[in-house]
Amino acid sequence: MQQAIAILDSGVGGLTVAKEVMRQLPLEKIMYFGDTARTPYGPREPDEVIRFTHQIVSYLLQFQPKMVVIACNTATAVALEEIRSRLTIPVVGVIHPGARAAIKNTRSGRIGVIGTEGTIKSGAYELALRQITPHIEVVSQACPAFVPLVEKGLFHTPEAHAAVAQSLRQFQQIPMDCLILGCTHYPFLRDTIAEVMGPKVNLISSADETAREISTVLYHKGLLATTNSMQVHQFFCSGDPWIFKKIAQEWLNEEIKVTPVVWQVPHIS
Amino acid sequence: MQQAIAILDSGVGGLTVAKEVMRQLPLEKIMYFGDTARTPYGPREPDEVIRFTHQIVSYLLQFQPKMVVIACNTATAVALEEIRSRLTIPVVGVIHPGARAAIKNTRSGRIGVIGTEGTIKSGAYELALRQITPHIEVVSQACPAFVPLVEKGLFHTPEAHAAVAQSLRQFQQIPMDCLILGCTHYPFLRDTIAEVMGPKVNLISSADETAREISTVLYHKGLLATTNSMQVHQFFCSGDPWIFKKIAQEWLNEEIKVTPVVWQVPHIS
Repeated sequence: MQQAIAILDSGVGGLTVAKEVMRQLPLEKIMYFGDTARTPYGPREPDEVIRFTHQIVSYLLQFQPKMVVIACNTATAVALEEIRSRLTIPVVGVIHPGARAAIKNTRSGRIGVIGTEGTIKSGAYELALRQITPHIEVVSQACPAFVPLVEKGLFHTPEAHAAVAQSLRQFQQIPMDCLILGCTHYPFLRDTIAEVMGPKVNLISSADETAREISTVLYHKGLLATTNSMQVHQFFCSGDPWIFKKIAQEWLNEEIKVTPVVWQVPHIS
Repeated sequence: MQQAIAILDSGVGGLTVAKEVMRQLPLEKIMYFGDTARTPYGPREPDEVIRFTHQIVSYLLQFQPKMVVIACNTATAVALEEIRSRLTIPVVGVIHPGARAAIKNTRSGRIGVIGTEGTIKSGAYELALRQITPHIEVVSQACPAFVPLVEKGLFHTPEAHAAVAQSLRQFQQIPMDCLILGCTHYPFLRDTIAEVMGPKVNLISSADETAREISTVLYHKGLLATTNSMQVHQFFCSGDPWIFKKIAQEWLNEEIKVTPVVWQVPHIS
């Protein structure tokens, strides 16, 4: 049996990573977990995000994946290193791939980052960027309105457009040549963000970049799938499976089967 | 003492990788070897290229680098796997990074590749691309005129422009949205290649992409340099050190010191 790549997120945002993995690595099998019962993670305390991430990883490990992808910037910011230290399989987050792509692409040396409150407050992008290139200038802004819009499936609406324009009104005045979409939900709003930021700003999707980095890590570990064994991707969610399925099918443009997972100790936020 | 990244090439082409490593990873120390006495590798038999690559790697290992980068597409095509199987430190080539970047960027699914005769004849790019995405369409062409021009330092001359226009006259008619510069010498001719291919073709530099992948691999192995210890890069070449120094300084835009290396059994081609 082909081992899968386990991808987890607070909700539907990580589907942007899943879609790119399916496009860039069509031979790979995916197992996706959206913690839609407890989304969004952005405003939560780090301890809680770490606990939730551990719980999902433990759930997915029963299926023996070959790699774990934390496709949520908030969870990557606070839980990546701890999860990595506990597992023997490779663990990939979504912050370093975006940071590395921005470093490759910037010419001005000033990089913008937008993300959830949790991600921006953690300073994880500044850290990832400056660890590699200490002289880089980073400007960042939290956009708490974006995730709830996407989780409700409202990404192609005038409401979404107004929220993006409003959130980025001041940020768009700052000169920068790269903007990291530092939340895996944001590619759902990419066209609108691009319109607001203008053509001179190169948008870096942590989803696209993470898929590429997954490819790099699998290659260097000798773990790339070599044959197409008619893989069937698996999807799990902790909240309403019908809403999840609707959004996932629209985004992935294919029929999927969703397995609902009910946490034994439910968390109501 | 900070361990260096060893970068080797048939001549000056790998300096495009070195320059990107210096830009994307400014804390890292580099050790560069240009086998200018035996350039170009492109028209040589695989056995000979493997032997030369082994010889350079053995020479560089005395300085205990933390990683070896085969910054030559011809040598990567024929010697990467063998070198990797012999060393315990990570070995990075220049073909897979370019292939992965092209897969990420293409929307049409048709990717162009230009390289030396050796690289194109080896089919290494087709293999790297199709191993990951079997449905991808690859069109390739050898451009044997390019490396000698760059090795002579003639990259900003009317002669270079004429050679590029002539070599790509037919190839530019083929619709493609990505073109991999499948030789580390070609970024020296990038502006001219871009002009000839037109604005719709996204040029993928294996140099830029390899530097980014070096960053990824060092990060995942826990080998990234963490402090700037005022590193001094080292340069070695087997041919005329004055020509090498002139081209390297012009390309890197900084003063360097070159150590000449004379092979004990000289190879005259």
